[in-house]
Amino acid sequence: MPKISQRGIDMPASPIRKLTPFADQAKKDGKKIYHLNIGQPDIESPVGMLNALKGIEFKVWAYTPSEGLESYRNKLAQYYNKLNYAIEGTDILVTNGGSEAITIALQACLNAGEEIIIPEPFYANYNGFACTAGVVVKPIMSTIDTGFALPAIADFEKVITDKTRAIAICNPNNPTGYLYSRQEMEALRDLCLKYDLYLLSDEAYREFCYDGREFISPMHLEGLEDHVVVLDTVSKRYSACGARIGCIITKNKALYQTTLKFAQARLSPSLEGQIAAEAAVDTPDSYFQAVSKEYTARRDTLVAGLNKIEGVYCPNPGGAFYVVARLPIDNADKFCQWMLEEFDYNNETVMMAPATGFYSTPGFGTQEVRMAYVLNQTDLTHALACLEKGLQEYPGRTA
Amino acid sequence: MPKISQRGIDMPASPIRKLTPFADQAKKDGKKIYHLNIGQPDIESPVGMLNALKGIEFKVWAYTPSEGLESYRNKLAQYYNKLNYAIEGTDILVTNGGSEAITIALQACLNAGEEIIIPEPFYANYNGFACTAGVVVKPIMSTIDTGFALPAIADFEKVITDKTRAIAICNPNNPTGYLYSRQEMEALRDLCLKYDLYLLSDEAYREFCYDGREFISPMHLEGLEDHVVVLDTVSKRYSACGARIGCIITKNKALYQTTLKFAQARLSPSLEGQIAAEAAVDTPDSYFQAVSKEYTARRDTLVAGLNKIEGVYCPNPGGAFYVVARLPIDNADKFCQWMLEEFDYNNETVMMAPATGFYSTPGFGTQEVRMAYVLNQTDLTHALACLEKGLQEYPGRTA
Repeated sequence: MPKISQRGIDMPASPIRKLTPFADQAKKDGKKIYHLNIGQPDIESPVGMLNALKGIEFKVWAYTPSEGLESYRNKLAQYYNKLNYAIEGTDILVTNGGSEAITIALQACLNAGEEIIIPEPFYANYNGFACTAGVVVKPIMSTIDTGFALPAIADFEKVITDKTRAIAICNPNNPTGYLYSRQEMEALRDLCLKYDLYLLSDEAYREFCYDGREFISPMHLEGLEDHVVVLDTVSKRYSACGARIGCIITKNKALYQTTLKFAQARLSPSLEGQIAAEAAVDTPDSYFQAVSKEYTARRDTLVAGLNKIEGVYCPNPGGAFYVVARLPIDNADKFCQWMLEEFDYNNETVMMAPATGFYSTPGFGTQEVRMAYVLNQTDLTHALACLEKGLQEYPGRTA
Repeated sequence: MPKISQRGIDMPASPIRKLTPFADQAKKDGKKIYHLNIGQPDIESPVGMLNALKGIEFKVWAYTPSEGLESYRNKLAQYYNKLNYAIEGTDILVTNGGSEAITIALQACLNAGEEIIIPEPFYANYNGFACTAGVVVKPIMSTIDTGFALPAIADFEKVITDKTRAIAICNPNNPTGYLYSRQEMEALRDLCLKYDLYLLSDEAYREFCYDGREFISPMHLEGLEDHVVVLDTVSKRYSACGARIGCIITKNKALYQTTLKFAQARLSPSLEGQIAAEAAVDTPDSYFQAVSKEYTARRDTLVAGLNKIEGVYCPNPGGAFYVVARLPIDNADKFCQWMLEEFDYNNETVMMAPATGFYSTPGFGTQEVRMAYVLNQTDLTHALACLEKGLQEYPGRTA
């Protein structure tokens, strides 16, 4: 039998899916599971977007240009320019979801063996994309005690080598929900200029900023035009994860032309996805206001509920729809599995993502879990009751 | 300004798109262009497939499982089992188009620096995927004089090293239209078993076999279960290039699990694309019969017309919708550009793909062009007249 590639063996399995077999068994056993483990929102996609999909008129389901439909790119530029990005449609390359945006950006910016610095905990699939591109992730720690604020610039500088080519952030952050401040973003700008590094800005959760806080993109910062690569997706903005439409934005023309070569090899993003995403740009503000109100209420319920449970600590994040909470447990992987396998409260239980999967450094995050507040408030309240009971009964409780 | 990665610089630009600026200018100058350069069929997608897309009922445009919807994978297995592949839905991993199928297969089967043997001329984007995966393509030559038959097994053996991990074929072939015989496929099987190599079988054009000739997949050959990786797409089968739905099929369970890890990192293929592709499996045989009849007639028109032009030679291919023809010219790149830039016949011209882009070995294919017969017969006849006139007037004519 031919060998599997070593990189295939090294490729990390998704930490979010590791517990799936236990969840499947729990369901078979008749348990109701509250899914706080995944970022699949229950929010409906905008009606105008779905109607555009249902209303497609083409008879030949044809390729689009590799960089995306011109009409969609121009429309998207309008969306970004409302946010003061000051870009053109020609600065946008449409991708098969945010995932492909990240993959192409890594390929175009870094060679195999070169390094990218990412504050941890970070979106677990960055590890997979780094493995695919053969690049090395250098994690630097952000901690729950600061609410997962940007690590000190000195911490970045400690790990910069002659192989460092880029810094990546996710803002608002998955998994922590942290929203970077203008001050933090400006510090990152100065750092990238000082060491001539790319700044990859994953802005999948841009529309999810709470309490009136300001979202700052590196696109808002002067002097960084050649360094910024924005990675985006319609997945969360329009609750359209299954549309697989994302984009790369860069004003660095040489970099844009390079990303285009990678895009040309895979021919095109989907035609119908772009048609729907173009219509989605006209989604009324009232949609986002309602979504934001709903998520704010859910976050408040979850964060307050968690902090009321003895031994639990959860910072109050400014964005996205995740929290990372510290629990009084010996081992998050064991605990999350135990909740599915051994525990129930009135035949219900909670599925969470152990935070270990979001840290690149072994041994970190063993007392932390990521929870996505993608359930309605009634379900969230039930889930909190379940978790409280579970923590009381868990044999590996530490405090 | 930060550097572009070396692999980004090395990444080949699509040879099919190199001439686009000249085509754009020709259009601006008011010339009508017959596009024989790209594999975008003019055939309508099946009505049932488009209706499924228009009829979507979901309200949350959600992720699907990373390996694809269970219902779609099971339905697809039925399609393949009608062709005697003897597979299960669990042997199928749904991908974002055939492009992603190739990328994931390369990543899972080969490490960076390892080698894959591909008969040339070959689908030009294999070079891009190889660059992305950091693997080395070892070309071996098939020639127009044999109609682009499989090279001798001895030629494969000459380039096998301890770094060789796989052989890739495209059957029926893009760009040559050649359909591999049972004898050739069995020879490949023996070779792969002898050296323990993967056999990547790109079957995008499977439904396009003419003159009653038999399509042989390595899935039909015994003893090769652990070695075969079928790469497929709905793009050509249903004239649905813009749907971006493909798949990997392998009965090698360890390999399947490895491809799944790469698939999990990018989350999921598109939901609506899979819904439509599932409906497409029920496309009536009459659709394919009509398409096959149309393409056979076009091929006959094109091949006969080409061979009537003085100095031109074109083999009669058994499948796909491409031919590679030899022209009496000094340089295919120059000639194709000249046809767009300098030439017109009653204000019309023809766009073709220089075959040089389909050869990996420099200097090969300089007298050859690829033509896709994706135009109706009237247009094909006009295009042939244009080409004949162009060859008469071209200053670099050789014979």
